[in-house]
Amino acid sequence: MFDPVEKLKEFIRQPSVSTDPKFHAGMKGAQEFVAGLLGSLGFAVEVMKTDLHPIILATRGGDATWPHVMIYGHYDVQPADPLNLWKTPAFEPTIVGNRIYGRGAADNKGPLMTNIAAVGRLLEETPKLPLRITFLIEGEEEMGSPSFPKFLAAEKARFQAADFVYLSDTALPTPEQVVITCGLRGLALFDLHVTGAKGDLHSGLHGGVLHNPIQALAEIIATLHDPDGRVNVPGFYDAVLDVHPWEREELKKLGADEKAYKEFLGIDTFYTTPGFSPFEALRFQPTLEFNGIGGGYQGEGTKTVIPSTAFAKISCRLVPNQQPDRIKRLVQEAILARAPKGVKIAFVDQHKGDPYVVVPPDRSNTPKDQSPVLARAFRATDKAVTEIWGRPPLYLREGGSVPIIADIKRQTGLDSVMLGLFLPEDNLHAPNESFNLDVMQKGIETTRRILAAVATK
Amino acid sequence: MFDPVEKLKEFIRQPSVSTDPKFHAGMKGAQEFVAGLLGSLGFAVEVMKTDLHPIILATRGGDATWPHVMIYGHYDVQPADPLNLWKTPAFEPTIVGNRIYGRGAADNKGPLMTNIAAVGRLLEETPKLPLRITFLIEGEEEMGSPSFPKFLAAEKARFQAADFVYLSDTALPTPEQVVITCGLRGLALFDLHVTGAKGDLHSGLHGGVLHNPIQALAEIIATLHDPDGRVNVPGFYDAVLDVHPWEREELKKLGADEKAYKEFLGIDTFYTTPGFSPFEALRFQPTLEFNGIGGGYQGEGTKTVIPSTAFAKISCRLVPNQQPDRIKRLVQEAILARAPKGVKIAFVDQHKGDPYVVVPPDRSNTPKDQSPVLARAFRATDKAVTEIWGRPPLYLREGGSVPIIADIKRQTGLDSVMLGLFLPEDNLHAPNESFNLDVMQKGIETTRRILAAVATK
Repeated sequence: MFDPVEKLKEFIRQPSVSTDPKFHAGMKGAQEFVAGLLGSLGFAVEVMKTDLHPIILATRGGDATWPHVMIYGHYDVQPADPLNLWKTPAFEPTIVGNRIYGRGAADNKGPLMTNIAAVGRLLEETPKLPLRITFLIEGEEEMGSPSFPKFLAAEKARFQAADFVYLSDTALPTPEQVVITCGLRGLALFDLHVTGAKGDLHSGLHGGVLHNPIQALAEIIATLHDPDGRVNVPGFYDAVLDVHPWEREELKKLGADEKAYKEFLGIDTFYTTPGFSPFEALRFQPTLEFNGIGGGYQGEGTKTVIPSTAFAKISCRLVPNQQPDRIKRLVQEAILARAPKGVKIAFVDQHKGDPYVVVPPDRSNTPKDQSPVLARAFRATDKAVTEIWGRPPLYLREGGSVPIIADIKRQTGLDSVMLGLFLPEDNLHAPNESFNLDVMQKGIETTRRILAAVATK
Repeated sequence: MFDPVEKLKEFIRQPSVSTDPKFHAGMKGAQEFVAGLLGSLGFAVEVMKTDLHPIILATRGGDATWPHVMIYGHYDVQPADPLNLWKTPAFEPTIVGNRIYGRGAADNKGPLMTNIAAVGRLLEETPKLPLRITFLIEGEEEMGSPSFPKFLAAEKARFQAADFVYLSDTALPTPEQVVITCGLRGLALFDLHVTGAKGDLHSGLHGGVLHNPIQALAEIIATLHDPDGRVNVPGFYDAVLDVHPWEREELKKLGADEKAYKEFLGIDTFYTTPGFSPFEALRFQPTLEFNGIGGGYQGEGTKTVIPSTAFAKISCRLVPNQQPDRIKRLVQEAILARAPKGVKIAFVDQHKGDPYVVVPPDRSNTPKDQSPVLARAFRATDKAVTEIWGRPPLYLREGGSVPIIADIKRQTGLDSVMLGLFLPEDNLHAPNESFNLDVMQKGIETTRRILAAVATK
């Protein structure tokens, strides 16, 4: 079997930033790396063209009566900027202690490599394992998987031929406590552009006669939350489902410490929807956040300009049963209604995704018609995690989004078993991202046992 | 005599952006160009070191009984960005019709060249002119003249030896109507930094638990104006003096057209302090503007980050008798009082300047002790403008700032005669800045006649 850490280094060295066309070579390198590695394990590899970045499908077929797992991952990563805040080069993997540093180390190259290595080990020891496996590795996750819906529609039959999806692109709250993610937030993103005068103006010669677009943008943004932290958009919460009681109980078992979380974040005061602890809020409540803002002069010193335009990048995280298109419309309508009359408003829609929830077996609200293979996979996961990590996993929703999980469910009925492997301190989407190599080793053995147990009939 | 247009081209070709250290060579080139040109006219040139950019003093001495004019200008320019909006290269002077395009063409290289050419022409025809002339050309005007106060304190005697300051760094409202600027707004500038978590965060994993600094910044900014357009900072207007009735009357003579001004700006609605027309507001009222804002991801596509920090660049334009330090303190106190508790606030002070007013002779509020040479300069200006432009000048305050004019007045008692030469369509501080060459030719002759008349005893 290959050395998973050495292979992970090779993978990180490919700067596969999907959102920025400058990184075309890195995207191609990462895609060829994954295809080559899966081919070397005996998989039949197809590189499926899309309008943007190819999707890799790697298949191990077998008897139609064998269970069939589809393992998901993504080979693309977030942009690495601001580069000046990285202590080691973003695309040069660097091991310090039990951590490997580099963009994508935790999201998702390390966890994906964990699952590939588990399959490699399992097939090496049991070459005739009665399990069909399909790897589905996409290259657009960090930009919202724009090509995925078309691919899913075209290849629906392949998904329907599987029993469940297995992935590791979710979080591990501490190195001791595994979480099986049973829900993901959805997403609705757009850019807001506010325009005042037709060109930039001298703030002395023209200051005091028109509504500055930076000011107008701020005035609009400032209306979008109540002082208590709720999103102040009519209808925003209408479709939000109440949390099932076992979910709140399960979250309590996590024993998360508010003081420690404050210290981790470096803040003095939480700011959550009233009635929800911070740990509840980020799992059970939707948000409206500002991911970026810009306008006018941003350099050193001063430039006394009234800019013509200013913008903000807005994202909503959604929970069941909020619909991205509806939420986007409600927020945009609120913005249009509240914009000062001296400015013009424009929106540029970005990507979106539905929220997702799956209920493990043996819960009060488990669907009666849950697939037996899915139930077996959940039970195998519980057992493997308890053996290797020393305590059973918790079944929690998480705040992040993997929109294709909801797409797959809606289009093909397939549910997902999500074993979280990245830690809060892994700095996802931020400078100095890293992945814990001890977690990786335990993860390989966990996935190996899960898949072995699913295969046993 | 040299060709003023050719010399102006040479001057524009020096990219003398004072606020950005990358333009060191351009600053040095512009300074050497000015020193060389004034030397060629027979002036004794001194290049006075400061902590940042040198000040050029060029002297034509004479009998102590001769009147003494100090001609002010600046050889630095604003940054040229956003460069992609320039139709011709910012630092390659380009003549189209009767206009010369390039950064600094109108602010202040063209008007300064006008006055140098006028002096050149005057001394060529009257080499023994009984007039002492000192050129004072600084290199930090566009960054708020930080070295000037120290220079002024050290060289006070030189200023006190002069009778008045003459300059062309103010506006001409139309090519037909000259304005003698009798007041300038002051300035108080600072940057506001808002910090939330200690690092950038993933908006899925942590969204919904903390106050996003972009949101907090917007919430703060949104409090700083009333919906009707007044600055909403306690005490902000306390020191504002009422306008003298002749000033409103004089402004009416300008016959400015609100509809045409809206079209020029490209806006549908004015936004002014209540009770003031837009033309009054920008001359008689203070402002609080946002010159820049930034934070989080600003690139293409999306990055679902909650940034650690966001900032705004804030500037106040001030009118008599507002004091920059007091106004800055009031605004900063209001910001601190209104900041949400989950974020940290920091200020970085930028430059500042006092407002300034001078009253021409023969007005109801002309000071009894006005200098006779200053009064003669005003009358000579009125006559020269009437002869050359076909109608008398108007005496108006303007919205822009030349902070050193107030400094000179306060420290040495010298008042200034300001002949405006740049037009609204000249795009000062914005892309595609240009200067009208017909205005330049008329300006040369106007300044020549004014100085000739001041010299005649």
